[in-house]
Amino acid sequence: MDSLLKDGERIDSIGFGNLRLIQKSEDFCYGIDAVLLATFADINKSARVIDLGTGTGIIPLILSYRTQASEIFGVEVQENSYERGLRNILLNDLKERITLIRCDVKDLLKEQSVKSGSFDAVLTNPPYVKYGGGLKNKTESRMIARHETTAELSDFIKEASLLLREKGDFYMVHRPNRLADIMVLCRLYDLEPKRIRFVSPNKDSAPNIILLHCVKYGRPDLKFLNPLYVYTVEGNYTDEINALYERP
Amino acid sequence: MDSLLKDGERIDSIGFGNLRLIQKSEDFCYGIDAVLLATFADINKSARVIDLGTGTGIIPLILSYRTQASEIFGVEVQENSYERGLRNILLNDLKERITLIRCDVKDLLKEQSVKSGSFDAVLTNPPYVKYGGGLKNKTESRMIARHETTAELSDFIKEASLLLREKGDFYMVHRPNRLADIMVLCRLYDLEPKRIRFVSPNKDSAPNIILLHCVKYGRPDLKFLNPLYVYTVEGNYTDEINALYERP
Repeated sequence: MDSLLKDGERIDSIGFGNLRLIQKSEDFCYGIDAVLLATFADINKSARVIDLGTGTGIIPLILSYRTQASEIFGVEVQENSYERGLRNILLNDLKERITLIRCDVKDLLKEQSVKSGSFDAVLTNPPYVKYGGGLKNKTESRMIARHETTAELSDFIKEASLLLREKGDFYMVHRPNRLADIMVLCRLYDLEPKRIRFVSPNKDSAPNIILLHCVKYGRPDLKFLNPLYVYTVEGNYTDEINALYERP
Repeated sequence: MDSLLKDGERIDSIGFGNLRLIQKSEDFCYGIDAVLLATFADINKSARVIDLGTGTGIIPLILSYRTQASEIFGVEVQENSYERGLRNILLNDLKERITLIRCDVKDLLKEQSVKSGSFDAVLTNPPYVKYGGGLKNKTESRMIARHETTAELSDFIKEASLLLREKGDFYMVHRPNRLADIMVLCRLYDLEPKRIRFVSPNKDSAPNIILLHCVKYGRPDLKFLNPLYVYTVEGNYTDEINALYERP
């Protein structure tokens, strides 16, 4: 197994049975956001699932453990992350279940293996940093005119919608300060917000993470779930967070 | 004072100093939503303020006590509520500070006394019931096509925007299940969501009320405030709710 490791890398156990992950301290390491998203998603048996911006594959790995999805894809544009993701799949002996695609999300539908409307669920933990790119079309331009440009976020939401079958599920984790952008873009691309969950560090603090479930062409009616608190007032993980790592 | 009362009516003390309110049990009585909204709003000295859908004037009454607004208006279309609101103003001796206008919100700018762009703050606790009315224009139609029609909510948000000066403040209380509609409509009418607060019955329950502060032509960046809990686990009002009724 050690031959899978490169200079400066380590192997971490990440809960979820025996799943392990190759990480490198100086690079981006996965955070609780990815775990929250992967455990928030309700994936049906035999579903075809894709994770946009998968990094080193943490979300596909957790889904392979927690769900009976028949095919799990991950898309990552950065070479370093993609390559480490491939080794994570080998390390966990999951190449029969998980396929990684190295590709910009915007170019995904140009890939021969990827067809629009062919996925039952799309997940994404997109980059949170705002990006000053161009606007995609006039309607969008109208909606976010005089506001920030949201090219990055809009790419993820637009592609998710294109990839999903009708009534397919979209799951996203993001930051509360982008809530207005998220709602506007989901509506614009026919992903109707159906369930939202706010995650706070503890019971006395404002939420700092949003978990959102949309349904393509869903009927409008947004259900708020109970808030999720990560830490107790004593600073330990709450029972609910600890339970996430157990087999469902 | 009793001459201000009609058959079946009573006078309630409502906190906020000596404020009193004429109510009639079989009609709509004010709820905690109005109190939450009136205390959430941060109104500057000498501001011109208007409350859309004011009912019997509960929000203008609280604002007259809590703020140094120079002019406070309330708009109500229903004759019964409007007329009782007039008597509430007399009862509390506030006719120098509060003006009620009997008018449909959609027709407000036809009133001689009301000019667009002339208000520093607009508040609204609109009807929560969905309404199957017509759509207002093509862009809106596009955004809410295949979704519910939101004519009532869109009227309140659109008129609020027209009434506000640039950088003016919009404060709304509503239900979480309309969050997507609210975000889309606020963006559409240039009211940028800046602060949001979720109100839950208690710490273990999902939010059932949203308090939203938008700024006309504001820069996009939505701040989440700490959640507000109405009751303790023992079923009493929380300290924060009790404190709302005190002079700030």
